[in-house]
Formats: sequence, C-alpha cells, structure tokens
Amino acid sequence: MLLLRRCQALTRFGSLTPHRPQAPAAATWCAVRFVGSGSHNKDQRWERGGLGPSWRQALVGLLAGTGAVLAYGFHHHKAEHTDVVSVQIKEQTSDLPIFSQEEVTKHRTLKDGVWVTFKGSVYDITEFVTMHPGGDKILLAAGGALEPFWALYAVHNQEHVLEILSEYKVGELRAEDQKKQQSAPSMDPYSSDPERHPVLRVNSSKPFNAEPPPELLSDNYITPAAIFFKRNHLPVPQVDPASYELRVDGLPGGVLKLSLEDLKKRFPKHTVTATLQCAGNRRSEMNKVKQVKGLNWGLSAISNATWAGARLCDVLLAAGYGPEAARWARHVQFEGLDKDVTGTTYGASIPVNKATSEEGDVLLAYEMNGEPLPADHGFPVRVVVPGTVGARNVKWLSKITVSPEESSSHWQQNDYKGFSPTTDWDTVDFKSAPAIQELPIQSAITVPADGAMVPRAGEEVTVKGYAWSGGGREVVRVDVSLDGGKTWQVARLRSGDEGKTPEPTPLGRAWAWKLWELTAPLPPDAHQLDIVCKAVDNSYNMQPDTVAPIWNLRGVLSNAWHRVKVNISDDEE
Amino acid sequence: MLLLRRCQALTRFGSLTPHRPQAPAAATWCAVRFVGSGSHNKDQRWERGGLGPSWRQALVGLLAGTGAVLAYGFHHHKAEHTDVVSVQIKEQTSDLPIFSQEEVTKHRTLKDGVWVTFKGSVYDITEFVTMHPGGDKILLAAGGALEPFWALYAVHNQEHVLEILSEYKVGELRAEDQKKQQSAPSMDPYSSDPERHPVLRVNSSKPFNAEPPPELLSDNYITPAAIFFKRNHLPVPQVDPASYELRVDGLPGGVLKLSLEDLKKRFPKHTVTATLQCAGNRRSEMNKVKQVKGLNWGLSAISNATWAGARLCDVLLAAGYGPEAARWARHVQFEGLDKDVTGTTYGASIPVNKATSEEGDVLLAYEMNGEPLPADHGFPVRVVVPGTVGARNVKWLSKITVSPEESSSHWQQNDYKGFSPTTDWDTVDFKSAPAIQELPIQSAITVPADGAMVPRAGEEVTVKGYAWSGGGREVVRVDVSLDGGKTWQVARLRSGDEGKTPEPTPLGRAWAWKLWELTAPLPPDAHQLDIVCKAVDNSYNMQPDTVAPIWNLRGVLSNAWHRVKVNISDDEE
Repeated sequence: MLLLRRCQALTRFGSLTPHRPQAPAAATWCAVRFVGSGSHNKDQRWERGGLGPSWRQALVGLLAGTGAVLAYGFHHHKAEHTDVVSVQIKEQTSDLPIFSQEEVTKHRTLKDGVWVTFKGSVYDITEFVTMHPGGDKILLAAGGALEPFWALYAVHNQEHVLEILSEYKVGELRAEDQKKQQSAPSMDPYSSDPERHPVLRVNSSKPFNAEPPPELLSDNYITPAAIFFKRNHLPVPQVDPASYELRVDGLPGGVLKLSLEDLKKRFPKHTVTATLQCAGNRRSEMNKVKQVKGLNWGLSAISNATWAGARLCDVLLAAGYGPEAARWARHVQFEGLDKDVTGTTYGASIPVNKATSEEGDVLLAYEMNGEPLPADHGFPVRVVVPGTVGARNVKWLSKITVSPEESSSHWQQNDYKGFSPTTDWDTVDFKSAPAIQELPIQSAITVPADGAMVPRAGEEVTVKGYAWSGGGREVVRVDVSLDGGKTWQVARLRSGDEGKTPEPTPLGRAWAWKLWELTAPLPPDAHQLDIVCKAVDNSYNMQPDTVAPIWNLRGVLSNAWHRVKVNISDDEE
Repeated sequence: MLLLRRCQALTRFGSLTPHRPQAPAAATWCAVRFVGSGSHNKDQRWERGGLGPSWRQALVGLLAGTGAVLAYGFHHHKAEHTDVVSVQIKEQTSDLPIFSQEEVTKHRTLKDGVWVTFKGSVYDITEFVTMHPGGDKILLAAGGALEPFWALYAVHNQEHVLEILSEYKVGELRAEDQKKQQSAPSMDPYSSDPERHPVLRVNSSKPFNAEPPPELLSDNYITPAAIFFKRNHLPVPQVDPASYELRVDGLPGGVLKLSLEDLKKRFPKHTVTATLQCAGNRRSEMNKVKQVKGLNWGLSAISNATWAGARLCDVLLAAGYGPEAARWARHVQFEGLDKDVTGTTYGASIPVNKATSEEGDVLLAYEMNGEPLPADHGFPVRVVVPGTVGARNVKWLSKITVSPEESSSHWQQNDYKGFSPTTDWDTVDFKSAPAIQELPIQSAITVPADGAMVPRAGEEVTVKGYAWSGGGREVVRVDVSLDGGKTWQVARLRSGDEGKTPEPTPLGRAWAWKLWELTAPLPPDAHQLDIVCKAVDNSYNMQPDTVAPIWNLRGVLSNAWHRVKVNISDDEE
C-alpha cells in the first residue's frame, strides 16, 4: 500500500506528464505492479463485481487501461471534443456538504472509503470500485481528481458514465481547492500530439482518430500522408531518433538492439506499396443496423502508401532466427512506445510464417511515401504487415519478440475479433474467435456521395471507389449496379495513378488496393439510383450482400456491398 | 492432306481403341498436327463462321476437342445414358436418295464436300464445317460415321445438336453398310471405365461424373473412396503400374523420369488430409436462377480424404529446381494420361510458389485413405493440391513441367474461371479473369434435405453440414438460421470423426473441411423452417447471401448461403 500511496502522490496533479519512453515514470511502474496479473481478466472482475447484464452492457466498453476507446461508438456522428481538463469553478448551491481537498485526500483506500473529485463535486465511489470495468486502476485517482485520468481515457467522457458517477455524489469541493486544481499545470497527455490536416473528419480527438473525405481517397492512388487515415489508441509518443532503440528478443542469440541508423545501414532498404485498413472501417453501416461499440468510422479508414524500411525477415535472421527457432516459434509480437497511464504499451502479434517469409514483405518501415514517417504514423519506426489488419501494423515500434504465443495485449486477445450476429456482450467469449489478421474482400463507393444530385442533362453518371482484399489476394473485378443489385456492370480497375504503368503484382503479394471507375448512361426513366458495388479477389472471395447477417458487437469486418442512393435532378441548372 | 487421309482411315471404324498412354496412336499424332494452333481459338472461329448470337448460344458449349462436357448443363436433372454406338438398322422409307458407304467415303474434303453418317442417315455438312465450335476436328469424321466421335464427346448427344444435324441430311445409308457399321468392334472409349458404387448420383456417365447423397457426406469425416465424388473429363485411362513413368521437365538439369517405385522409394512419404471440391459444386442452385453450362452438380461435389505420396517440392528439388529456376519459373504444369480423340490430354497448372513450398503440402499421391488410388481417382499417381479447386488436382499424372507460363490447356485458359453475372457467351473474354486456384469459403446443409418433414413431437431439429475454405484458411464458425437469415445460432464444428481428437492445424494449412451440427428447439408456432447456413474462415471471409449476384455463365463458385426448407409435421405418427 505504501507503493500505491507514492503512486497516487506522483500521479494526482501535474506530475502526469506526456509519456516519454526514455524514462518511464515511477507512477507507471508502481501502477503496473499494483494492478498485477489480473489486469486483462475481464471475467474475473465481473465475477468479483457481481454485475448483472444491464451493467455489463453499459460498462463493458470501459475495459481496463488498455481499452481506451472501446466505447467510443456511443458518440457516433460527432467527434469527441469535450475537454475535461478545463475545470469551471462551480457555484456552491447544492444542499450537499462542502469538503476541502484535505478531507477528500483522506479517502483513498477501501478501508477509509474511496473519494474522488470531478468538476468541483465530490464523489464517494467506494462501492463502485469492485464494479469498475477498468479494475483496480480506479484507485490511482483515489483521494484526488478524476480529470487527469479521464484526459487519458477519453472513453469516460460519455453521458452514461457521468450518470453512473452522479449516483455517488456526496458533496462539493471547496471553491479555493477548485481554483488550485485549475491552476495546476496541464494534465493533458495528448498535448504534444502533432498538428493534423484540417480536412480530416475527426472521430475522436484524444486519442486521435480521423479519416479523409471519401472523394479525396479515390483522387490519389498513393494517399498523401497528411490525409492517410489516423488510428491512434493512445497519445502519440515523442521519440528522439538519435536515442531510439529497437529490441529484438526471444531468440537463442540473446537480445539484439538496433538504433535507427543500424536499421538503415545494416539491412537492405525494401519498398512496398501497401494498403492499410482499420478493422472498424465502415463501422457506421453496422451502427445503422444496431449499435456497436467502437469509433464510428465511415468508409475512409483505409489508405494506401509506399513504405520503405528493413525487412522484418532480414532483421529476425540477424537476431538469430533459424531452423531451431522455427521449431517452437509461432508468433512474432510487437510492442509500441505509446502507453497508457499504467505503462501498458500498445501491442499485437502476427503469425511467424508471415513474419519470416520473404514473400510476406513485412517491413520495419522508417519511410512513408518517400519521407521519414510522420509522428501520427509511427515515427521513427513502425511495422507494416501488408495484407493484414491495421491493428497489427504497430507504430512507434520498441520491441519485437519471437514467441510460441500470441501477444497477450488486450488488442490481440479481447478486441479485433469477429463474432456471430447473435453474440452479445453477455455471451461473448473472446477466446472462441481468432484474432483478425488477413482481412476479407472489401470495396466502397467514394463518388458520388450518398444523397448527391446527379443532373439528368449529363446523361451519364460516373461512379468511383476503391477495392482491396487481405492476404495479398488481388482484386480481379468490381461489379457496379445502378439498380440496387438487380443488374451489374464491370468497372475499370487501376493499380496506379492515371497515365502510369503499374508494376505487375507477383501472385499472392497484391498488397495495394485498386481504384475503380465506371461511367454509365443514366437509365432514362429513373429518378433515383441505388448504386451498389461489390468486389471479387483472385481467390474468388466475394462480399456479402447485406450488413445485418455480418453485424458483430465490435462492429469490425464491415464489408457488405456498399450502397449509395443518389437523386437524378431534372433542373437544367 | 495425305496425313489427314491416313488419320481418317485409322480413326474411322474400329481402330479407335481406348487410349493407352504407352503407345499414342498415329491418329492422335496427325490429328494434332492437322488441327494446328487455331484449335483453341473460339473467337477466330466465330469470325470465320459469321455466326449470330443465337447460334453462338446454341453452339458455344461445343468447344473444340477439349471441351467435352461443356454443355452438359442442357441435360440438367437427368444423367446422360444414351448410347449412340448401338446403331439400329433403319428402314429406308424417306424420299431421299440412298448412298453406299463407298459414295460417302468420297466426300471427305471441303473441295469434294464433307459427308458423314449418323444412325443410318447421310449428311452433307460441308457448310457447317466452318461453324463447328469444335473447329476443324470435325474433319476427322469426314466420309465416315459420327458415332465413334460422339461416343467420346458425349456433349453432342443433345436434342439441339441433332436438330442442327438434321438440317444437313441428304440421304440414307445403304442397309448393308449400316449392318457393317453395327458389326464393327465396340467404339466406346469408356468401355474400360471401372465399376462404380450404386449409391452415387450420376450427372453424366461418359465421362463419368457423380456425387454421393448429401446425408452420406456428413456421416464420414473421411469420405470413403467409393462415394468420394467423381469428376472425370475423359475416359479413365488404364495404366500398368509396372511401366508407369512420370516425366519432370522444364528444369536446367534436363528431364527426370520416375517410375512408381522411384516415387515411393526415393522420396519420403507424406500424408495430408485434404478436401477436394469441384468448381461446379452447387451449380444446380445457379441453374435455378438462369441456365448455365456445365454438369448439374448438387451440393456433394466435395469430399475429404487422406492422401499419401511424395511431396511435389521434394520431387522438384530432385529434378533441379533451385534459385536459378526460381528466377523465371512462375507455374508448374501437369498433364494427365486421360486424352481425347485428338490426343489432347487433360492439363492444368498451379502457381510455382504453391508447388515449391513445403507448407503448400502439394502431393504426388499414390494412396487415398490408406489404399492405392482407385482408377477413378487417378491410379497410379495424381496431384493433390490442398486448398485448390479440384480441376488442378490432375489425375493419372504423366508429366510435370516447370514453366514461366500457365498450362495452355482448355481447362486452364477457357474454363474454370469466374465472371460477372452480366457476362454472357457473347461478351465473355476468358483472358480477363484468372484461372480458379484457391476456392472461396463454402458451406452447405446435408441434413435435413430440402422438403423433408420434421415431426413437431421431437421438439428439436438437428441440422448438419460441411464447411470448407480454400487456400488453407480454416473455417472458424458456421452460423445457422431457422428463419431464413433473420436470427442465427452458432453450430458445433468438428475436425475429425466423433470421439477422435483431431491434430491441431498449422496456421494457413487447414486443408480439410469441418463438419458441423446444430440441434435447436423447434420454434413453437412455426409450420415451416427456412434453414440457412453460412460459414466464416480465419481471414473472416464470409459467404454471399444470395445466388443471383454471383451467377456466372459457367456456374462455378456457387457459394451463396445454403438454404433448405422443411415442413414441421403435427402428425404423431
């Protein structure tokens, strides 16, 4: 408990600076020790808390530490801009008692009661501690303000969370203590996040998740980095390239440590054009069937870039990977430098055969579109796993571990998996489904937009979009319908920018999307077009027709036919 | 032309014995020379013949030599049992002139006119020669009887073909010449085909194509060879295992010749359980949308067996495959010993990376379910390409060629490819689509059968089926609906026979199907169940909902949700 106290003192106000990998804070260290091995075991917590189904539904999104954005879907169609850090001094008008900070600070154990403050009110959350989906980590805030923690776990900034909190209100914080809180230095771990392009549509600002407007996507075969979709799970770490060090471990030769210069000089530079797609791309269409948990992505959580770096297989060979390791190795785990308040870093793993095969083209990339990686995309080094869901393309890479096991991270074990539409948060067993790796066939219409007007005088309509499949499977055809799927036309595909001859794709290594286009006469009597697209890859996988039968509680793998409705306008103008 | 005459003399009557690989007949050799390079070029022929769309539609199924069964679909729902060889002596009652065989024999060039006989009638088909979808090969029959050729190309035994022929009738064959034809030795190249199990549902008897009843499929995790679906393109060749020789060529070390003993002794025996599926499995469901061309397969053109043999990668290494060949090699071609009347053998190819990778598990199999291969399954040696469409699993293997090119065979180039539902025989461009290799995710309901009665007194219904995906992608889930797809339940999967613990499947090498089962309460008020199944593989590929949008002119890749309707009977009996 002494350790815990020290933790609290360190983390409560001000001391929670943006995390820098060079010097993990003591807070981080002791929090990890305190939380212990149960930190990822949701079931265990549920049992302890004895929560009923309705509670589970409301709270399960708020998974421990690592699940920072799990429940963002509740905010669909609006970005999260609330800044919980700017505390307003409340007028003290309620009938509840007024407490000093000193009084609040006395309540930081289950024995003494667990009190917290939020926006000038005081809450006794002792009874809630065992029910907190984030587990014991809630005690880090005991005796102090919630704001610095909620600034990191923006998932809390939701109406239903505030409702839950309000049930535990016991009083108001003394006005002078509110002023002290306000004058504390910035507690926002996202304060050093980079500037972003204003055209991006922001799904959450902390952590930053944003996508470009669809019509820009199909304008560029290679997506400019500035508008490449951003999918961060945590604050962007600031990394000094000069002191950057990548550790490769788990192999018989011991730990291999590589500087950025080592990566550039010791290994051949390999260039791959690869499309990355978030597992949640097109989640908003699932939300229309039934609410899911997750960021409300439109259809642009996918982009295509040219990446350059060292090949993972070369680095693993240099680290001692060989026939002996091949006997027991099954997975290659990655760890990022982005971490949460407990020090838990982002992590994921991929199958060892993908990692070690030359044809797998897995890169430790330090360039994106010919430039050093931007901060949002993993500067200085990220993994690029072509053909594989974005979540395994770990950014700000700090560690590679060859292992018989998958990554134990929340994102590998308890997220980014697909389930039957019948599975809900009461029945889900994350162990029953494989972690998403290769993604299924996908396509979407970027132009025209849903609801657009098409002038009849033009006599034609041009439909544009993208198509891509996971696992290096090449898109071989895109069918487009103007009548909701009754009749189809075959779109023209392209694998490069207009006028440029693309390199031929080696079989099984079609890592990049195809853009497609169809110009078709307007049906003479139609007033509306129900435009649909569906793609086929070279294993002849096809997209499912409708969303409801592939709906799943996390809203991932949304790859049904994409549909937009447009109106034909008779107005000559 | 001298060569051609000799050909005709050799092939006309009696001399067309079942093909044996040991001694290719002179007829075969000269026919190939005569037919020349245009034999696969359908478009060229269409242009020459100046055929309109309706002709094309009627005739396009009768593709040159190799396309023996292309138009079998016209016979849907009944097997082909007509035996054209048993000629009846016709009474000569028509007003048309009577010709002697001698007179007929004079007409065997375009200059002299091209006459043929069929069932006692004489036809002047000179004008039809340029329109024959099978090309110049028709001249092999000039001056003689059609029966021996149609016995091989059973595709001709169709009403509309007889109608076309009737337009060219010029007379009757003299009665004594009809008798001579009848007394000629059997011309049936299928006469030495093996006996088959009576339970099989025969889709065509010559060549033999048959499938087991669905309910037997799900009774056995390993399908017994006797009921394993049979898919022959040509007569079953009779091969003497003692003189069998496999040639491996295309590699710098020259030709490697291997006897059956060599294959067994020089290379480690490797065992793989792998499901084979015909590209046309479930074609009958496409026929219900709109007629396609091809055998009218139900849902059992898929089976699972344990195969043993030498690994193709080991044999290729022994034949000199190495880094030098890897620079130019792109495909590995296979040739069978089964051939048509022109000597054209069955052929196919697979990508070189599949062929040469240990993880690809490609076998030169000489055992099926622990026994030597049965005649129908390729005795003595066949290729087993796990995860890949049946058509590439070449039986009665005679030759392996490492090449920069795909097989030039009809079945690789102009068949077994998928197209948009909008593509018809007038617009199809076979070069525009890739040859089917890996197959997409598939599942079907084997029990209960469509239209079955389920007693309400039983209170439950048990649904069974199979699920499989190509490319080694493991089936991870099967969803079953009793209400047409509105709600779903997750079926129990099994990867082995009941009571046996299956071996764990290495990632990416899930070659065998899963059987699945669901027992669910009968919905209390329902009188009918609309049972649906859909499967998901570990790349989260899913089956399309409906058949029409994946309909294609060859009726391949039929993998929409499978549906059966059953009635609930209130009868206590």
